[in-house]
Amino acid sequence: MGDTAKSWQDVAAKKREQRADKIPAQWRIPAELMPPASANDVQDFPRTSGLFTKQELLLTELTASEVVQKIACGDVTSLEVVNAICKRAAVAQQLINCVTEIYFDEAFTRAQELDDYFARERKTVGPLHGLPISLKDQFNLKGVDTTIGYVSYANKPASQNSTLSNVPATLMMGESVNNVFGRTVNPRNREVTTGGSSGGESALVTFRASYMGVGTDIGGSIRHPCSYTGLFGLRPTVRSCAGLMCRSVDDIELFMSSLLQQQPWLHDPQTLPIPWRRDQMQLPEKLCFGFAMGDGTVTPTPPLRKTMEIAKAKLLAAGHSVVDYILYEAAEAVEIITKMWSADAGNEFQRDTDAAGEALHPHLEAWLGRSANMKAQTVKEMWENQHRRAVLAQTFLSRWESTKEMTGTGRAIDGLIMPSTPFPVIRHDGGYPWHYGALSPLLDLITGVFPITKVDLELDSVLEDWEPTTEKDKEVMEYYGKPENHENALVGLAVIGRRLEEEKVTAMLRVVNEIVGVDY
Amino acid sequence: MGDTAKSWQDVAAKKREQRADKIPAQWRIPAELMPPASANDVQDFPRTSGLFTKQELLLTELTASEVVQKIACGDVTSLEVVNAICKRAAVAQQLINCVTEIYFDEAFTRAQELDDYFARERKTVGPLHGLPISLKDQFNLKGVDTTIGYVSYANKPASQNSTLSNVPATLMMGESVNNVFGRTVNPRNREVTTGGSSGGESALVTFRASYMGVGTDIGGSIRHPCSYTGLFGLRPTVRSCAGLMCRSVDDIELFMSSLLQQQPWLHDPQTLPIPWRRDQMQLPEKLCFGFAMGDGTVTPTPPLRKTMEIAKAKLLAAGHSVVDYILYEAAEAVEIITKMWSADAGNEFQRDTDAAGEALHPHLEAWLGRSANMKAQTVKEMWENQHRRAVLAQTFLSRWESTKEMTGTGRAIDGLIMPSTPFPVIRHDGGYPWHYGALSPLLDLITGVFPITKVDLELDSVLEDWEPTTEKDKEVMEYYGKPENHENALVGLAVIGRRLEEEKVTAMLRVVNEIVGVDY
Repeated sequence: MGDTAKSWQDVAAKKREQRADKIPAQWRIPAELMPPASANDVQDFPRTSGLFTKQELLLTELTASEVVQKIACGDVTSLEVVNAICKRAAVAQQLINCVTEIYFDEAFTRAQELDDYFARERKTVGPLHGLPISLKDQFNLKGVDTTIGYVSYANKPASQNSTLSNVPATLMMGESVNNVFGRTVNPRNREVTTGGSSGGESALVTFRASYMGVGTDIGGSIRHPCSYTGLFGLRPTVRSCAGLMCRSVDDIELFMSSLLQQQPWLHDPQTLPIPWRRDQMQLPEKLCFGFAMGDGTVTPTPPLRKTMEIAKAKLLAAGHSVVDYILYEAAEAVEIITKMWSADAGNEFQRDTDAAGEALHPHLEAWLGRSANMKAQTVKEMWENQHRRAVLAQTFLSRWESTKEMTGTGRAIDGLIMPSTPFPVIRHDGGYPWHYGALSPLLDLITGVFPITKVDLELDSVLEDWEPTTEKDKEVMEYYGKPENHENALVGLAVIGRRLEEEKVTAMLRVVNEIVGVDY
Repeated sequence: MGDTAKSWQDVAAKKREQRADKIPAQWRIPAELMPPASANDVQDFPRTSGLFTKQELLLTELTASEVVQKIACGDVTSLEVVNAICKRAAVAQQLINCVTEIYFDEAFTRAQELDDYFARERKTVGPLHGLPISLKDQFNLKGVDTTIGYVSYANKPASQNSTLSNVPATLMMGESVNNVFGRTVNPRNREVTTGGSSGGESALVTFRASYMGVGTDIGGSIRHPCSYTGLFGLRPTVRSCAGLMCRSVDDIELFMSSLLQQQPWLHDPQTLPIPWRRDQMQLPEKLCFGFAMGDGTVTPTPPLRKTMEIAKAKLLAAGHSVVDYILYEAAEAVEIITKMWSADAGNEFQRDTDAAGEALHPHLEAWLGRSANMKAQTVKEMWENQHRRAVLAQTFLSRWESTKEMTGTGRAIDGLIMPSTPFPVIRHDGGYPWHYGALSPLLDLITGVFPITKVDLELDSVLEDWEPTTEKDKEVMEYYGKPENHENALVGLAVIGRRLEEEKVTAMLRVVNEIVGVDY
């Protein structure tokens, strides 16, 4: 009751103060080592600052699969790993503001328990024994706040178990900024975002301050942040689903197979009762990929186009085949899903910001705020929109199946390769002029993302004779502007598979990554 | 254009006339053999009338599994089978008014093609070679009307392939009656219905005028008609899904496995890409069933209660175990699903009846007609209702899982046995005071139904000291009234399993049917 009397600024300030207090003194960056605000690239700070031991650097820079193996062999204790990763998360927080709730002490306690168990039993408790992970500030963790970026949700701890990184208020934005925890910035270029809504996760994982992050995705919220930070990611089936953000394909397999071993469907009615089917990772020797250079409305900007061409050439050279594809359905999916998100004209968002008297971010206000004067949809409009989705699903499936005549493999294309967004990354408050990410959540497609190249200041300029095909195309290319706006950004692509093809998509990610992936 | 100027009565009369014309003269029941309107039980007419040869009776009374085997062995031709079943369907139509579109000629042509193929190749085209089936008047068949019982849909043939039996107008009723084709009656007692909305199917299949019928079910539309006519049925996963109505468990397995062999997910985006997993039909030797004597709001009427007790005793005697269960969630599911169905306050139904100037059935008018003055829901109300479903799904799952402590098998209950509706059958225009069928479509549960007993005029009276537990309970028992209202009705039960457990539910149906099923 007390909180409601306080201004939202007070509530938010208190929350941030509590968070700052949880960073142990020995992990605070000394003033003389703190990079100046003008230093955009802080990704290498752990290596260059001298604050980390060699062992700490080594441990935190392993993938999840590697670190669990080291723990399982007894090469390293869980406590050592947790200590190193928490230290790196503390430093990340001071440089890029990505963490919301800190519970290092709980992590130490649990790590010690696991080490004791291991010492006593000479075995692990399970395949993820000792692995510290981070969760988006949308999951409930017993006794810990889940704010979803709303001030009014602060100080209302949940009673269910799960684990928190920063998000945009309402989750409905491509950047992770809100009135509670502020703005998360990209460690490779602090002038740009790590994306949204799982942008705190992508920041933590790319900074090696977490081995893997669990995000959610109903419009690109896993795939776009992974693309903006050079991570691997998987958006599995089931709408608004949790998915993984991590540093390798092995980590995807490790996480998915371990998770499904727990039979989550016995506890979560949203989960389908399907185990990890390792046999479905067996791929034919020769694959055929659709290559979608956009959706017919917006073409990818130069770094993405270049990355697509590189990937195509390398896959062909490796003996696979490709079919050119334009994913027209993705453009229509944006319209349908946007209508679904805004069916109530933003009433719910308004209610939750009103509850603390805070304002919506200007981009959200313009879209879903009271000033936008949007009208809530009627049942008829909602049903028509749902019917439109059903028709789109049929169109997508028929067109995908029709590639059978072109692949030369006797099958339709195995997967569809394309960018997640037409541009490499977004500058702060840069808005979100377009994306290709609506189709997967709308039709429950499985999508994996992986990093390939980096923006090149010389090669990635817009060609002088480039001609836009639509007004939106022109707008997006102007938004991209010049490669300097995207300095240091990693560039990734998505592999899209069909419903419930988690295993196949993971296996295809592995094949494609081995051929075209880079060590970044 | 011409049709819209005609009255709906004219359109409907023309439709019925066309249907009548399609019955060949030699299959019309001679006036002297036609049972009087007062003859309620016409189920045995094919055997007693002398209109059918021994071979015709034998062929039509086989199950689907048996008849396809006979055809595959060359014991009988497809044409012979089709001829016998069409003749029986023609007779069914004259006695119980269950057919909407007749295309006997197309069936003969196809049967001849199949026989030619078989003669030439000495093999069948697939596991359903030569099997005539019937489809509910909701599926599209190229060049044939799909009316869904609306006059305004008549004479507008579809362009997609699929096959038709009678339904209630709008599909939203427990009886199959509409202004286009009239009322379908139950061959065992023409004073009662064969249910809805797949009531034309249940009539055809129970009369042995079709081997299996394909219906749909979003609230009981497969399960209730099966129960009212003593059929086997399966409502698989996926909301408003197509499912099977047939005469044996073998037929369920035959149909499901044959269908999934065709990989329907390559053509229908609503279908999950999961084959028929025969290994999941392997059951533990000792099963444990939940026995749900109602939903806490309405208790089953005497014939259903008796059937439950018989089933329980026989399963225990066969070495299985049982756990008493009240399916409270089913009562809440009725509220949630009813709200979903009526979100638009019946506007769509009103539009489609207005289009021909016809009236809604009085029961529908009272619920969803203009005179009901219902208000369409807001987005907020719809979202709240969907959230309520999510909470209910969690409650249901947790309670199911909690039975692990009681079963003695180390597992939670394997399946839940209960009636589909509290009463055996509905008299014409009897309304629909209550049912237990909302939970399966709401939570995507797999449900199979099967017949066990028959209403017994002596044993199934309401006991004098019976006390209702709720007002609704009282209302339903009054509705049941006395066993005479349900004369000759078969009484079945449902076996409910979890999501995607089609194979397990089919296997459990087989086990339970072997122990408690009867030859009716």
